[in-house]
Amino acid sequence: MCRFVLYMGPEISMSSLVTEPEHSIIVQSFNSQERPEPLNGDGFGVGWYSDRDPDAAIFKSISPAWNNHNLFNLSRVIRSHCILAHVRAASPGLPVTRFNCHPFSRGHFSFMHNGRISNFQSIKRQLCNNLSDAAYAWIQGSTDSEHLFALYTDIYAGIDGPDSADKMARALTQTLVRISEMCRAAKQLETCDYNLVVTDGRRAVVCRYSTGGAEPNSLHIHTGHRYSCHEGEVNLSPCAEPTVLVASEALTDADSWQVVAAGQMLLINESLEVEVREMFTPH
Amino acid sequence: MCRFVLYMGPEISMSSLVTEPEHSIIVQSFNSQERPEPLNGDGFGVGWYSDRDPDAAIFKSISPAWNNHNLFNLSRVIRSHCILAHVRAASPGLPVTRFNCHPFSRGHFSFMHNGRISNFQSIKRQLCNNLSDAAYAWIQGSTDSEHLFALYTDIYAGIDGPDSADKMARALTQTLVRISEMCRAAKQLETCDYNLVVTDGRRAVVCRYSTGGAEPNSLHIHTGHRYSCHEGEVNLSPCAEPTVLVASEALTDADSWQVVAAGQMLLINESLEVEVREMFTPH
Amino acid sequence: MCRFVLYMGPEISMSSLVTEPEHSIIVQSFNSQERPEPLNGDGFGVGWYSDRDPDAAIFKSISPAWNNHNLFNLSRVIRSHCILAHVRAASPGLPVTRFNCHPFSRGHFSFMHNGRISNFQSIKRQLCNNLSDAAYAWIQGSTDSEHLFALYTDIYAGIDGPDSADKMARALTQTLVRISEMCRAAKQLETCDYNLVVTDGRRAVVCRYSTGGAEPNSLHIHTGHRYSCHEGEVNLSPCAEPTVLVASEALTDADSWQVVAAGQMLLINESLEVEVREMFTPH
Amino acid sequence: MCRFVLYMGPEISMSSLVTEPEHSIIVQSFNSQERPEPLNGDGFGVGWYSDRDPDAAIFKSISPAWNNHNLFNLSRVIRSHCILAHVRAASPGLPVTRFNCHPFSRGHFSFMHNGRISNFQSIKRQLCNNLSDAAYAWIQGSTDSEHLFALYTDIYAGIDGPDSADKMARALTQTLVRISEMCRAAKQLETCDYNLVVTDGRRAVVCRYSTGGAEPNSLHIHTGHRYSCHEGEVNLSPCAEPTVLVASEALTDADSWQVVAAGQMLLINESLEVEVREMFTPH
Repeated sequence: MCRFVLYMGPEISMSSLVTEPEHSIIVQSFNSQERPEPLNGDGFGVGWYSDRDPDAAIFKSISPAWNNHNLFNLSRVIRSHCILAHVRAASPGLPVTRFNCHPFSRGHFSFMHNGRISNFQSIKRQLCNNLSDAAYAWIQGSTDSEHLFALYTDIYAGIDGPDSADKMARALTQTLVRISEMCRAAKQLETCDYNLVVTDGRRAVVCRYSTGGAEPNSLHIHTGHRYSCHEGEVNLSPCAEPTVLVASEALTDADSWQVVAAGQMLLINESLEVEVREMFTPH
Repeated sequence: MCRFVLYMGPEISMSSLVTEPEHSIIVQSFNSQERPEPLNGDGFGVGWYSDRDPDAAIFKSISPAWNNHNLFNLSRVIRSHCILAHVRAASPGLPVTRFNCHPFSRGHFSFMHNGRISNFQSIKRQLCNNLSDAAYAWIQGSTDSEHLFALYTDIYAGIDGPDSADKMARALTQTLVRISEMCRAAKQLETCDYNLVVTDGRRAVVCRYSTGGAEPNSLHIHTGHRYSCHEGEVNLSPCAEPTVLVASEALTDADSWQVVAAGQMLLINESLEVEVREMFTPH
Repeated sequence: MCRFVLYMGPEISMSSLVTEPEHSIIVQSFNSQERPEPLNGDGFGVGWYSDRDPDAAIFKSISPAWNNHNLFNLSRVIRSHCILAHVRAASPGLPVTRFNCHPFSRGHFSFMHNGRISNFQSIKRQLCNNLSDAAYAWIQGSTDSEHLFALYTDIYAGIDGPDSADKMARALTQTLVRISEMCRAAKQLETCDYNLVVTDGRRAVVCRYSTGGAEPNSLHIHTGHRYSCHEGEVNLSPCAEPTVLVASEALTDADSWQVVAAGQMLLINESLEVEVREMFTPH
Repeated sequence: MCRFVLYMGPEISMSSLVTEPEHSIIVQSFNSQERPEPLNGDGFGVGWYSDRDPDAAIFKSISPAWNNHNLFNLSRVIRSHCILAHVRAASPGLPVTRFNCHPFSRGHFSFMHNGRISNFQSIKRQLCNNLSDAAYAWIQGSTDSEHLFALYTDIYAGIDGPDSADKMARALTQTLVRISEMCRAAKQLETCDYNLVVTDGRRAVVCRYSTGGAEPNSLHIHTGHRYSCHEGEVNLSPCAEPTVLVASEALTDADSWQVVAAGQMLLINESLEVEVREMFTPH
């Protein structure tokens, strides 16, 4: 269910991340390697931040990523220091509409999810009843992911203190705890999968986590090297300027990609330093 | 906001109702005459019943009706004794997706709405909390109309007795009363508009109603004549076999079209006899 | 590049052919087994004939077949004695639009193609210059397939005699000969692949052929058994009433499916008898 | 048939041109004022140039401009010194696909057309036969506009000398002369309408012209004032830095908008100076 990639670092062109690499997210849309089912053709989305605007720009479509001319055209000209991209394999029963595609964006935050809340219907109303009016009104689609993110934005807004990766991590953790409680209350005991990315364009929090000790979906990280892509081949050259890449599947064969361990949460701060935390184990 | 048409009578081709008449629903999609704004270009839908299947077939799309090749192609070959068609002008803030297009269909029932529940967000969670799990899980879009219809299907299922237009009318009335109560509780006092059609393919209930004494949207009815359309011109020839047409805007200039009075509910039974009832006035 | 299926026989529901079988054309849209690349997600189309209208009805869309709600809805209610379905894997450089999806329909004929004219651009203008004004004006897309079919309809119209499978076979053969000549004149010597279906709803001609002795794409035929599908399992029960199925990939494991040999043309007449002819070998 | 707008000047946000003005191109998509028919809902497109890339970026869609979320989202973040936008009312018989939407882009050039070559089919093959292989292969849709532009790019490439507005004007004039000759040869004598914009991001040529002395579609120009838009209201403040706006319909009530006279061609050079030329009168 879905593949995603997050880039943070010196400004790059979106195409060098999204369309050009040999194992790009476009390739992963029809030939992903680390899922039992290779196809992620139920829509896609990209998000990016510019220096001028603290809110992300979002382009999403229900057409498969691999044949979307607008995506190729936009990727060629868009440049950014923070880019998100997501290809979707719809969970059974969830409609394919633009409003169910990732990334989601609310205020300064953007969000992507690979996984699902099992039996989401069993807790959906409870979750909605827990949202602020504004967060509830903001929801346009029907996915578990969008609802989870709405709850996150509410919880984040309720935590005191300045913006920080730590605050984001605490909000995300509380979000998962709250959803875990709702699942228990609804006797929803099936495994939920939470490979998540939340970013405000300057910081990000990422986790790889499944409930009940299940093996989570694949997730990889790459840090510390300048990123570029020429003729399909990705270059990750040593560089003082920090770069962070997080991807469901490594974009290259380079040894420098590392597996994010199950149950880990990564905090990426304003300096693009990465802190690793072990996650709680709610059920 | 939207235009619709319902046909019940001897089997006709969908094109004779939907695409061919001079003031067809297709024409109403870009040039409606009885609304301040002539455009209904935010998607469309058609539904129809066949003898073999008690559930309606539905074809909907977010593209404007006037340039949809599939619609023209299907209309040419589909024949039915009960056809619904709807062109949408999206209420502000409601996304244009297939899942927000009318008609909606659940079990044997199909449903169309021209109007809106004002400030729907203020009662949406309350309405969801009142739905059965099955009706709630059935919802795929985000419109007031789909939620209203989900509530109707729950209420209908809770009324004893065999299927009948009277039972449908009672369920629809209770639905509007319940929504009216929710609006009052939420201090939502703005006018709500309810030009509604619900049918199970054999019977139908239609109403033209706005809360607070406001003038409802236009609605017309035509009965008792066989319907046909040749070269854009509609023929309504005297006929023993009953026919009922209900339309936001008359498809022809014929004198035989009648205005449905504000506050009236029409019950169309298995014999296609039409009974007129005055509606309650909840607020 | 593409998968297709043709059904001719006693009236069946479209769903029993298109959506229900375990290895249905829907499954082949994301998991075809007899092509190097399993994905055929660049749009789809269905066509069918009714007793009332000698022209096929066509429903096509650029969305992948597997997530198209309209397709599932229509398949449930449409019944026909002659059904075509096609899932597309776009040739490189050919745009994904509704007008490039198969089947194509002109007059009484419908047409599907699995394969391609290599370097089609090199002969496209020559081909267009050979079309009648009417056939040229009829073209709406940009595929080799649609142009080939336009030429076929012109050639068929120029052959004397009543409609017959033999006349269709001669027209199709002449079409391929003419295209072969254009390729030679343009020094276009790469292999062209022609797995083709043309039908008028009562008769059909099918071929499995590649130029230059290359192995054509897979093609299977099944005859002589009544077709039905219950809970995903296809039944092919012995039956006096003739049935013909032609499919890029067998819909079942039944032994009764036969491979169409390379270079064969199948003529299916009004009685659904199948005659096999060896094809010419133009280059 | 269509409305368009071109902006050249200091960098502005796309939203200030496309989505915010009271009579923006979005408003013109459903409520244009200077055409008999107010609706331009058959798709839209935007193009823009960045400093980094001499080729335009293009975003086009078949959905109506007024309900396209991606358009609103992109317009918010894209900034450019040269922006084109177009809303389409499809000529009868021409399909609505992304590949028939304007602007078209080939090499450094972008192109928009409001009008049509009447009976285009009668000269289409002749026009194609006159194109270079590369220009012919570049065509993806079926419109008169795209073919006209392909011919322009061929003719421009055949003219010696450095890039200039004058060279563009000569190429555009020769294009119209050639098409006029083809029409005459095909006995196509109906009025053709050519409100055209061609730009390479630094220079532009615009014309307002109909054959046979017919009144062309509306066209307006605005120069010499800095452009901005706040809360729907457009500001055109005196400014030394040159700005040129060309629009089918004035975006504001300001007196400073001027009508482009019928039969005029405007040459906008690298300094954004505007030269007016009277056009030839080919038939």
